[in-house]
Amino acid sequence: MPTYQAPTSDTLFVLNDVLGFERYNNLPGFADATPDMIEAILGEAAKFSEEILQPLNRIGDSEGCTRSDDGSVKTPTGFKEAYDAYTEAGWGTLPFSSEFGGQDLPATLATAVSEFMTGANMSFGMYPGLTAGASAALLAHASQEQKEKYLPNMIAGKWTGTMNLTEPHCGTDLGMLRTKAVPQADGSYKLSGQKIFISAGEHDLTENIIHLVIARIEGAPEGTKGISLFVVPRNLINEDGSSGEKNGVTCGSIEEKMGLHGNSTCVLNFDDATGWLVGVENKGLRAMFTMMNEARLGVGMQGLAVSEVAYQNAVTYAKDRLQGRSISGVKAPDKKADPIIVHPDIRRILMTIRSINEASRALILWTALKGDINRRSDNEEDREAAEDFMELLTPVIKGVVTDKGFENTVMAQQVYGGHGYIAEWGMEQFVRDSRIAMIYEGTNGIQALDLVGRKLGANGGRAIQAFFKEVGSFISANKKNDAMAPYTKPLSKGLTDLQSASMWLMQNAMQKPDNAGAASTDYMHLFGLVAMGYMWGLMAKAALEADGDNNEFMQKKLITGKYFMERIMPETSAHLARISTGCDTMMALEADAF
Amino acid sequence: MPTYQAPTSDTLFVLNDVLGFERYNNLPGFADATPDMIEAILGEAAKFSEEILQPLNRIGDSEGCTRSDDGSVKTPTGFKEAYDAYTEAGWGTLPFSSEFGGQDLPATLATAVSEFMTGANMSFGMYPGLTAGASAALLAHASQEQKEKYLPNMIAGKWTGTMNLTEPHCGTDLGMLRTKAVPQADGSYKLSGQKIFISAGEHDLTENIIHLVIARIEGAPEGTKGISLFVVPRNLINEDGSSGEKNGVTCGSIEEKMGLHGNSTCVLNFDDATGWLVGVENKGLRAMFTMMNEARLGVGMQGLAVSEVAYQNAVTYAKDRLQGRSISGVKAPDKKADPIIVHPDIRRILMTIRSINEASRALILWTALKGDINRRSDNEEDREAAEDFMELLTPVIKGVVTDKGFENTVMAQQVYGGHGYIAEWGMEQFVRDSRIAMIYEGTNGIQALDLVGRKLGANGGRAIQAFFKEVGSFISANKKNDAMAPYTKPLSKGLTDLQSASMWLMQNAMQKPDNAGAASTDYMHLFGLVAMGYMWGLMAKAALEADGDNNEFMQKKLITGKYFMERIMPETSAHLARISTGCDTMMALEADAF
Repeated sequence: MPTYQAPTSDTLFVLNDVLGFERYNNLPGFADATPDMIEAILGEAAKFSEEILQPLNRIGDSEGCTRSDDGSVKTPTGFKEAYDAYTEAGWGTLPFSSEFGGQDLPATLATAVSEFMTGANMSFGMYPGLTAGASAALLAHASQEQKEKYLPNMIAGKWTGTMNLTEPHCGTDLGMLRTKAVPQADGSYKLSGQKIFISAGEHDLTENIIHLVIARIEGAPEGTKGISLFVVPRNLINEDGSSGEKNGVTCGSIEEKMGLHGNSTCVLNFDDATGWLVGVENKGLRAMFTMMNEARLGVGMQGLAVSEVAYQNAVTYAKDRLQGRSISGVKAPDKKADPIIVHPDIRRILMTIRSINEASRALILWTALKGDINRRSDNEEDREAAEDFMELLTPVIKGVVTDKGFENTVMAQQVYGGHGYIAEWGMEQFVRDSRIAMIYEGTNGIQALDLVGRKLGANGGRAIQAFFKEVGSFISANKKNDAMAPYTKPLSKGLTDLQSASMWLMQNAMQKPDNAGAASTDYMHLFGLVAMGYMWGLMAKAALEADGDNNEFMQKKLITGKYFMERIMPETSAHLARISTGCDTMMALEADAF
Repeated sequence: MPTYQAPTSDTLFVLNDVLGFERYNNLPGFADATPDMIEAILGEAAKFSEEILQPLNRIGDSEGCTRSDDGSVKTPTGFKEAYDAYTEAGWGTLPFSSEFGGQDLPATLATAVSEFMTGANMSFGMYPGLTAGASAALLAHASQEQKEKYLPNMIAGKWTGTMNLTEPHCGTDLGMLRTKAVPQADGSYKLSGQKIFISAGEHDLTENIIHLVIARIEGAPEGTKGISLFVVPRNLINEDGSSGEKNGVTCGSIEEKMGLHGNSTCVLNFDDATGWLVGVENKGLRAMFTMMNEARLGVGMQGLAVSEVAYQNAVTYAKDRLQGRSISGVKAPDKKADPIIVHPDIRRILMTIRSINEASRALILWTALKGDINRRSDNEEDREAAEDFMELLTPVIKGVVTDKGFENTVMAQQVYGGHGYIAEWGMEQFVRDSRIAMIYEGTNGIQALDLVGRKLGANGGRAIQAFFKEVGSFISANKKNDAMAPYTKPLSKGLTDLQSASMWLMQNAMQKPDNAGAASTDYMHLFGLVAMGYMWGLMAKAALEADGDNNEFMQKKLITGKYFMERIMPETSAHLARISTGCDTMMALEADAF
């Protein structure tokens, strides 16, 4: 049976030593997030994750969710009790405004907490995760009346939230959606249509579920210009704020899927369901993007979280499993064989995963902090710069951390040999669960297009130029520091590759847009490597500056970072080489030739 | 529901145009394999695979195998009937000696046939696949009496075979095995112990199952020097050759695994089971390697086969699914959106898989042909050269084609977006099924070590030098051919990287063996890329020389090969860069530091 230990000290290292969280105590809510407070919260989150959530992970996979004929859905054994404990502890309230019952704490901290919970139990983490996304969308776009009606109970976890985008014939291309909304005399709408792949769409954890739904108001323009956002509670809300009679939305079926069985992925049928417009008519897509940006960062975090738990178990197995002898000489002469962690190829796997996970964690928290600055700073310049970075990095994190995260779970599974393929060891569940993160909230191919087609050119390339400048300045500032050379030199090479690729795109994608599409995934991964490399630069610097403090821990950081530079960064050149070949050969065959 | 179409014309292209099969008609059995005969056999194999085996693939996954309390195992609905049809058509007899009821046809042809069957239904293909491996081991090591006793029924498919190596505490490190064999007065042995992960270990397809089992004879030396091979029929064979009373071997349970549910993976308990020594006492490991080399090539073929069927379905979906508009201008103005095959990032996935599959197929058949030459040629020099190549390439094919094959199924699944994650579409089954090929018959890490630690240095590096010479000569011979430049130039670069990596190993692995282990997986992949690149060189040349014959088909080959050179070959430089960093950072952390 797999185990999980929340990576608390790694998270604290990023927050305190790398990001210098204390420097931001002028931001609202940050003053409360003292180092002691952060440590206490992360400690409690670790305990909750390890003791309550992790033991339910395998049960969630084997039992799955079951739908009754009346459309109700039962979650796996223990999920309800765990969810009650979650809400009682107020975990969902951390980053939200105290106006609606939140604690005003940094979203960065909430992100760190949700990594722990997801690492322990990804399926469980989805229920509050989607609620947080839906709450963020309401906060940004709903009327004050709507906020007061829904947010307190959502933030408290008394109600959960969902996002209803996908329909059978449209996923990426939301302009094709057919769910329609008919205006009623009282200002409400009647929604009809079918939504699929709705995570946490129906369950038995809470008395109500607040669906956010995109639909087309009768007579609205075709395409994305006619999409509006609605709030559709599963149970209508009574005058006194309690949940009342059932609305016209039912779970038609639960999808049979590859993994994530503990979360109910539903087909939802809307049949004259009563909903209320959120924000402005026909501007629903913009509101949806608020929700999606939050969610995309969250999905990147899932890629990391499952990779981390898979890594931890691979380490345990590699230390326990005796097989063969070290080629550099017997290491455990008192045993029949050496533990497989002595073999370089096993070490390669562990170091690879470890070095990517630690960089991913830093990158996700670094970006989450930009989000906090963007939402909370009173300095417009700071807000703009933070937003630029957050917008730029969100698709990179979603696309790269989930791709790498999945690869990592596959490598961790490989450490187990044949046992990795057997259900009882739990490793194959990590592979099946983490696979979805590459797909939902926009496939990783879509993330790459978002990066290349939208984010790079936004505001005349302001964000990417600022990124180049920040990384370049870091390299320059540390040029004379010999101890930093193992980090800055490979990073500099990676940055040059990224700049060359960016230049290639500028020169070749304008007149031939397919060149952008043909480059997109490689460009995203090249970007991800440089961003992770930059994180390793920051981490190495922090480790060196710790100066004897917690020395063993810091030494491990320095070695892991060096491994990343030696073994992971060289991939940038292959990406650049591919990008530079353009789209001609890729697109040469007619569709019929396949 | 997924479909499958055997890639008959691609296979014929390799056999006829690339390998020039007719040139080998001086080898025994090859004279019968005329182009017409080959086409007829492949045509029948395609029909059988597409019509009989493919429709059972999803059923096999969803039903799985079920064990009754008496230890008997029921295969999924339809498998028994399909197996009967398989034996009736004599598919298992193709490559075996007519002395035991075989058809003496080239093993290369049998390999091509088994790709089709595996692509249609990997779980089904394992039953005859293991029988073929066990038969090959008996052919090579058993006494004439044993051969006559077992082989005719095994080759005919009346009985199946298995390989019993793994025990709970030992997989890779077979020296630790505990199954013991006690000599009996009549020359037989009584075997006791537990074997796990035994594919096709128990089932209801045939009246008997012939287990090949490695065990330690009482009093034999510890470690690998005390391992002997035994034949242990599930039912003892009567004097008249019929299957008689039950032997002391029972299926204790069926493993719950990630995929491959249609094949019964058994825990087999040997309880004073009667067995007979095969070959020489304490030389069982050598005999087992015969079986494993056959099997490893077969596993590489599985990696290709599932990648191929996943690719085909991704192509179909990409042509059907309407979503978004081409960034280079609307392609299907009469439709609500363009089919997603117009998007470069989708095209990237399809071209990547296609270019790897076609190279893998060529490489597997090229290597299988070496096997035929090695077994059948009367020229010792030819035999030796062929054996060298087969030994060298077997771990590369097993390791690289299954790694890439799995990655390909994941990419093909990605084309489906959310639908790829849903069971009914069948794509996630391909991912789950193909995952095992990276693990069994020696994990891919073990393949890499076999290549670097055993195959490279064998006979003073004779095989690798011959490989360098063959590829180098090919490049030189085509240097002046401009039409070949898109293939020979990148191949030349790749070959140089491989040679540099080999040189690095020579200079650094002797004094520090961990440098070999640290390089092994990257070296194997670098080797695989160059080997595939060489295959594309051969294919491009064959396509150019076809000279207007079947022009459209040949044009596709040329474009696909060019794509491989542009987008896949550049990975060699990243592998070389990683290898060159050595083992120091990788091994720097103490085991306890993880």
